[in-house]
Parts: sequence; structure tokens; C-alpha cells
Amino acid sequence: MAGKLWIGIDGGGTKTTAVIGDENGHLLAVAKGSSGNLTAISIEQLYTLINNLIDQLFIQTGVTLSDVETVFAAMAGADRQAEQQKIYDAFKQSPVLEKLRVQSDIHAALAAGTWGREGTLLIAGTGAIIFGYEQQKTFRVGGWGYLLGDEGSGYHLGKLAIRSVLKAHDNKMPLKLFQEKILSHFNVLSPDQLITKVYGSTNSVAAISSVGRIVLDAFEEDLIAKSIVSTVQEALLELIESAYSRIDRTKPVVLHGGLFSNKPFYERFTVRFSSRFPDLIALKPPISGTVGAYLLALHESEIEVSDPVKQTIQQTWRLLEGEIT
Amino acid sequence: MAGKLWIGIDGGGTKTTAVIGDENGHLLAVAKGSSGNLTAISIEQLYTLINNLIDQLFIQTGVTLSDVETVFAAMAGADRQAEQQKIYDAFKQSPVLEKLRVQSDIHAALAAGTWGREGTLLIAGTGAIIFGYEQQKTFRVGGWGYLLGDEGSGYHLGKLAIRSVLKAHDNKMPLKLFQEKILSHFNVLSPDQLITKVYGSTNSVAAISSVGRIVLDAFEEDLIAKSIVSTVQEALLELIESAYSRIDRTKPVVLHGGLFSNKPFYERFTVRFSSRFPDLIALKPPISGTVGAYLLALHESEIEVSDPVKQTIQQTWRLLEGEIT
Repeated sequence: MAGKLWIGIDGGGTKTTAVIGDENGHLLAVAKGSSGNLTAISIEQLYTLINNLIDQLFIQTGVTLSDVETVFAAMAGADRQAEQQKIYDAFKQSPVLEKLRVQSDIHAALAAGTWGREGTLLIAGTGAIIFGYEQQKTFRVGGWGYLLGDEGSGYHLGKLAIRSVLKAHDNKMPLKLFQEKILSHFNVLSPDQLITKVYGSTNSVAAISSVGRIVLDAFEEDLIAKSIVSTVQEALLELIESAYSRIDRTKPVVLHGGLFSNKPFYERFTVRFSSRFPDLIALKPPISGTVGAYLLALHESEIEVSDPVKQTIQQTWRLLEGEIT
Repeated sequence: MAGKLWIGIDGGGTKTTAVIGDENGHLLAVAKGSSGNLTAISIEQLYTLINNLIDQLFIQTGVTLSDVETVFAAMAGADRQAEQQKIYDAFKQSPVLEKLRVQSDIHAALAAGTWGREGTLLIAGTGAIIFGYEQQKTFRVGGWGYLLGDEGSGYHLGKLAIRSVLKAHDNKMPLKLFQEKILSHFNVLSPDQLITKVYGSTNSVAAISSVGRIVLDAFEEDLIAKSIVSTVQEALLELIESAYSRIDRTKPVVLHGGLFSNKPFYERFTVRFSSRFPDLIALKPPISGTVGAYLLALHESEIEVSDPVKQTIQQTWRLLEGEIT
């Protein structure tokens, strides 16, 4: 191979994806594996996963490790130095080690939204959190988890929806269509069985969050669903509010996580966001977290990503992404 | 013995207490045992517990089972018929069976507040719930547990307190004295360690609820603590609001659970309660749940509890209660 190559790996809760490309933004191949969340899999499994992904990329491209400058692994659950060190330790005997950089997958999401390392990320997934990175310093606002209140999260959305069913039941009100759907979703006939069902779930938080989809499907037609979604969005706006003084207003606020994948939710949110914070811009990342990890690999070699390079990345990504989504 | 006797047993989360008395309200002896919560102990343990308590009462009084008309066991966790049947089944081979009546401990708390079987109970313990019993029918409002939001509970109180610490930290505000105490309570130096500590607890909900005491101690002096307590009380008032149409306004609303044991909390709450619901009366039970269970035993024999009997109960109870509290 002429010139060097860079690998980006994005390890999420359900899948891990990898991409390899050159310094001009030509993405050559992608690979896909299982969950890369360090809190869910063992360090041995993570080691095998990363090696497999790299091998897949090498087989597709005929590249060898000596052609690779950096492997940037952005892994869920690798937020703290202790976790990152665990991953480095796993590669102690491997030639990959000297090329490996480990970070949280949050950094890849941020890079996917900003094309760079710095900026602010608003995550509305199962949890809700603001993550900022400026001048090599990170800050977090929110992200307190379900026990201390994850307002603005998918859990919050699901919880409010289930509560609306229980409230209707307590007040002897008839159920709305989306509330009936929540009962069917849990396979129960009456609201008072819901509580037992939720607490009896193997993963109650996931069970509650799973209801969010039903509300999102209904909120354009149903007033109760609309007010639930509005409450969740208000909580996200308040999260921005409380982080406001620390947000770099020269960069967009990147919207990340499952709730923003819902188009009507995303559209309504950005309208409210703009009217509340006219000096801020909120956007969904134009590229995937996998490409974000690749960008971070380039950054490690201090390679400037110019506009033509960005275009090349987007063009070549479009040809590859079908293989891993 | 001349005449018959009645036994009341109140099984709670940390202790179970029993009392024996006659139809004129003369309480003769009390006994104390460990937790009687069916969700926490096995049915064999519960069987042994109840037998031990009865034996203790018999030893103290020289009474035998043939002198006893009814043993009323009001046990935490025995809300549903299935659980009650389990307890009856455990006594299948025992002569106690024909005298045994099993109910939830909630009924004993209600009886302790109303001297009768019917009325409304507002519970603000680890959970928050309204429990009503009218014409042999029960109703419940709230009580959805921590995952679906137990607004008005000790968990809610603790959660808001911890959130106030995290919020202060997110906004780089100095901590108030009671917030510092929360850090010491969890043995951490910085608010961001709180989250790890709470989620790492064996019983996170109990850990969060345990903070309530710190807020209650502070709320008369500290404005943030005051507003937290006010939010929790407002949630309890809203619970009453949503149950309002089903509450029997001829009977008092009985206040039950740990939060009401705090005198300033109780006093402030009753003031707000009276101004919000001028046609309702809220009160703390004049007698204990153990005596409530004894009253329910009397009710099983359709014995009227007249005012002189009530006086005798209160007088004789005062002599005994020191032994079991």
C-alpha cells in the first residue's frame, strides 16, 4: 500500500462497527461485530471482538497491520481511565497495542457531529446527559440514571406513558388508544397488572424504556401522548439550560441517542430548541459514530480534515454503510 | 379465665408485635419478634414467628389457646388473597388455624386511626399510597413504586435531596450544610462519587430513602431543604386530590408511615392539608398498629368498641407499649 491507513471502531450496546480509510477520506471497508459495551461483555470478549473487526477489514482490503497508523476504539463503557487501561492491558502482548487509542464511544458521537474533537453532545437514549469536550477537558451535566431521575431520557418517556395509564385507571378514565397499546405491549388486560409486570421484568428499566416507541408513534395525534413528549423535551431543554454557560456557542450541539432517531420527535425538538436558544444550533450528526471514530484516529496523527476530505468521507461512506446497518 | 380473649399481631418490615386483650379493652400482655414481611421471610419463618409471639403472650398471662377467640395477623406483604392463603396453609396442621384471620398490615394501621375497619389511609413511607376501605371494598391510589415514580414517599424525598447535591455540583454552586451531610452520610468527598455510591449499594432504594432524615432535620432552617419537603408534601396532597371523590369525608384520613413520624413534617403537612381540603380531617393514629390488629380481632366477633372501651385500651396500652418499642 502507498501511504498509511486509519481504523475507527465504534462499540455500542448492541453492535460494534469498524471502518478503515486513508488520510484523504477514502473509506475502503467496513466490518460489523456484536456488543462492544465493556459493562456487558468480558475483557477477553472485547479483545476478540476488536481483533476480529480488524481482521475483517484486513481481509477485505489486503492491508496488514504495518499499513495502519492508528486504531481508534471508541467503546461504550470505557468512560474512565481505569476501564481504558483494562483494554490496553488486554492488548499487552499484541502488536496492535502501539497503534491503539481507547476512548468512550461518546467521543465518536461528538466527532460525528462536529468533524472534530470538541463540542457538546446532548444524549437522549435510555439515559439523558450532556457531554462536552473543550480544550482536552470534559464536562457532564445530568446522566444521573434511572434511580436519581433521568429526565429527558427514553426511560423518562416510557415512565410517563405508563404513569398516564395508571393515572387513568386510578381516576376511572377510559384508556386512549396508545394506552391500550401499552397494555397489549406488556400482554396484560388491566392497568393494575402493569405494575407487577414492570417490576417482574428481568430488566425493568429496559421494559419501561421500551414503551417510548408507542408514545412516539402516537404523539402527533394524541393529546396525552403529545403532552408526555412535550414534558420529556422540556426536560432536555432544561438540561441544556443548566449546561448553557459551559457550552461552546461557536459549535453546534450534537443530538444523539434513540429519541432523536424518531423524525417527528427530532423535528419538534429542534423547533423548540431554536426558539429557546436562538444563539445555539442543534443538529444530528451527518455521519455515523464509526466514521467519528475514524476521524478521531486521523486527529491522533494531527491530520487536518478539509472540506474536500469531508466530501470524500461522505461519498465513500454512502457506498459502505449498507453493509453494516 | 373468665371470658374470651383476642390477639392482634402487626407484622412490619423490621419487627412484628403482638398484643392480647379482652372485650372490654383490657390489654394484658405484649410480645415482640423480628420482621413479619412475607416478601422478606419464608413462610416457615412466618409460621414460627407467629407461634412464638402467641407463646410469649400465653407464658406472660397463663392463657391457653382455648381462651382465645381470634388471632388477627395483619402482616406486611399479605395484601393479596394468594399470600394470605399461603399463611393459612402453613397453619393447616395447627389448632391456631380455626382462630386465625390474615390481612395486610395496612388494615391494622387503618383500624389504629379510625378505631374501625373503614376509612382512608395516606401512607408516606418508603412508598406513597392511598388505601381506602369502604363497605368491604378496598381502593388504592398511587403506590406505583420507585421505578414508576413514588412521589410523596421517603424515596422521593431522598431522591430530590441527592439531586439537589448533583445540581449544585453541575452548576458549580457551593453545597449547603445539609448537602455536605449527605456526602458524609455516603462517605464520599465529592458529589460525582455519589452516583456510583448510590448505584453500587446493595439496596439502592433504601440507600436513597435513608437520606430523607437529613433533609427532615434541616428543612426548618434551610431554604433548599424546605422546598424539597414542600415538593414531597405537594405530591402527597395531589395524591389525596386524585383520590378525593372516593374518600369517605365522614371519617378522618389516617396518616401513616415514616415521614409523618417527623414532627415538623407532620405539623406542616396537616396545616397544608386543612387549608387545601377544609372538609377533610387528617390525623395520626392515636394507638399503634398492634392495637389496630387487636381491634380487628374484636371486630371479627362483632364486638362494639365503645368510648369507655377505647379509654381502657389507651390506658392499658400505655403501660405495655414500653416493652415492645
